[in-house]
Amino acid sequence: GKGVDILYEASVGGGIPLIAPFKRDLLANKISTIYAIINGTTNYILTRMASEGLDFSTALKQAQDLGYAEADPTNDIEGIDAAYKLTILATLAFNVEVRPEEVHHEGISRLSARDFRYAKELGYEIKLLAIAKERDDGAVEARVHPVFLPQDLLLAKVDGVYNAVQVEGDLVGRVLFYGQGAGPSATSSAVIADVIDAAQRINRGVSTTPALRLDPSKRVMPISEIETRYYLRMITVDRPGVLAKISKVMADNSISISSVIQKESDVANDVAEIVLMTYPAREQAMQQAMDEISRLDVMKEIANFVRVED
Amino acid sequence: GKGVDILYEASVGGGIPLIAPFKRDLLANKISTIYAIINGTTNYILTRMASEGLDFSTALKQAQDLGYAEADPTNDIEGIDAAYKLTILATLAFNVEVRPEEVHHEGISRLSARDFRYAKELGYEIKLLAIAKERDDGAVEARVHPVFLPQDLLLAKVDGVYNAVQVEGDLVGRVLFYGQGAGPSATSSAVIADVIDAAQRINRGVSTTPALRLDPSKRVMPISEIETRYYLRMITVDRPGVLAKISKVMADNSISISSVIQKESDVANDVAEIVLMTYPAREQAMQQAMDEISRLDVMKEIANFVRVED
Repeated sequence: GKGVDILYEASVGGGIPLIAPFKRDLLANKISTIYAIINGTTNYILTRMASEGLDFSTALKQAQDLGYAEADPTNDIEGIDAAYKLTILATLAFNVEVRPEEVHHEGISRLSARDFRYAKELGYEIKLLAIAKERDDGAVEARVHPVFLPQDLLLAKVDGVYNAVQVEGDLVGRVLFYGQGAGPSATSSAVIADVIDAAQRINRGVSTTPALRLDPSKRVMPISEIETRYYLRMITVDRPGVLAKISKVMADNSISISSVIQKESDVANDVAEIVLMTYPAREQAMQQAMDEISRLDVMKEIANFVRVED
Repeated sequence: GKGVDILYEASVGGGIPLIAPFKRDLLANKISTIYAIINGTTNYILTRMASEGLDFSTALKQAQDLGYAEADPTNDIEGIDAAYKLTILATLAFNVEVRPEEVHHEGISRLSARDFRYAKELGYEIKLLAIAKERDDGAVEARVHPVFLPQDLLLAKVDGVYNAVQVEGDLVGRVLFYGQGAGPSATSSAVIADVIDAAQRINRGVSTTPALRLDPSKRVMPISEIETRYYLRMITVDRPGVLAKISKVMADNSISISSVIQKESDVANDVAEIVLMTYPAREQAMQQAMDEISRLDVMKEIANFVRVED
């Protein structure tokens, strides 16, 4: 594919050969999941927000002052850079052509200090993850967005401008590769190439370099088809029965709630804050539920929702 | 070398080809430091001691009950297994033949719950590390022993039976590779092989496989020559002037103290506990100082000493 070739060239740089290691051993790989922190700028910003309770704009400003974020940070903070890198990862790991426009991407700018506080309370860290998964039926997920990651996962502890790629394979189990995302731009790509290569070599033990052969039977899933858990933070009027109304909408959309946090309400302003965690639900159902919830008369706003990866 | 060949065979297992990736690209590698958690049994025990305040024998018993430690755990807990694995790592990373008897190894059985408490207080985790370093003059360190590792280092956060290898190279900076140490015994070795290979490929970008060519000008350093920081925990009589006596011995051996913790003493039993952290000092000087300190009339016992890697 044309798009993929362009990406290769952009990511190679510095004389580091990426394509050959990537292509080698790819035909028989058994990788099921890739979770990648592949944008150092956003990981730096999220680390500062988590550790110091900063809001997004303050953390971004600090990243810019330190040269970790560009004057126009759009490519980084909106997940575009990570989405482009993910097309390479997903294509090579799953033998399916993933085009940039097929990667659903959401950025980190809507995250607030409150979300980090709740995440911590619930046992999670917030990271911008590039995620690629292959289901048993050959459907491939490729998405970039903030996620709640369990605090005890090593990937959740990757802080600052560092990058890390966690790969899950049949034989190798969970492996993680970690290195500098900053510095020569080739580094990050090289790390990615080599972790894939390493995981495949552990699985198969081949050192020849077959050409990348795409599997036309595989397809990239739209985000609406994924199934995951959700964190949902809402500002409502402060009145009995609000939670009942929200719960009814969730139930109507076949979404089960796993926990609820209702914080002390702000009586003077007649507002309350409700935080929900769901059991695994389909994205489409969740989007439908959020649409209905946002139209409830008791609702001020859906302040945020974040997908949860366990 | 014969020893190295034997080790190769032992570590290959499971049909996973280790030697070829290890040997490839080795001639021009610029790796300076390897820190490796390559024994899952000991890492599991240390994780339990750190998280639950268990003493060594209780944590060992639990590891045995879960099948993570053998009935005779000597090979694991005394660092012998890790030392053997380190000979492979060090030989391949630094092109110098490292024989098992040249790897200084100390185990984890002398660590106590108190050491973990002080480590936490001082900002460290305790890990059994396999360490290989190459100095500018071509001298190579190869040692296995418990270390204080800064809490914020990702390697310090590797918990349970997992293995991780951190490699530091000129161009690549710090990279870390993480995976399952348990399961098929080949896994751990494969992880090691591949991280070395990956680091070298990032540095050089070569995909041919030159034979391992040992550099006869390099030598393995005895432990007495290394220079590091030390944590020292002592039980003394509870009397004024004790710290002055200890400090004098340290100064006489050119060792500078960076911090002192003197805990509330046990007046009834006339004992006090003193914990010291030193600045970098030569092992030989430190051993000499500890020998002199142990003979001070105010000294009950040197309860423990642990090397510190920053």
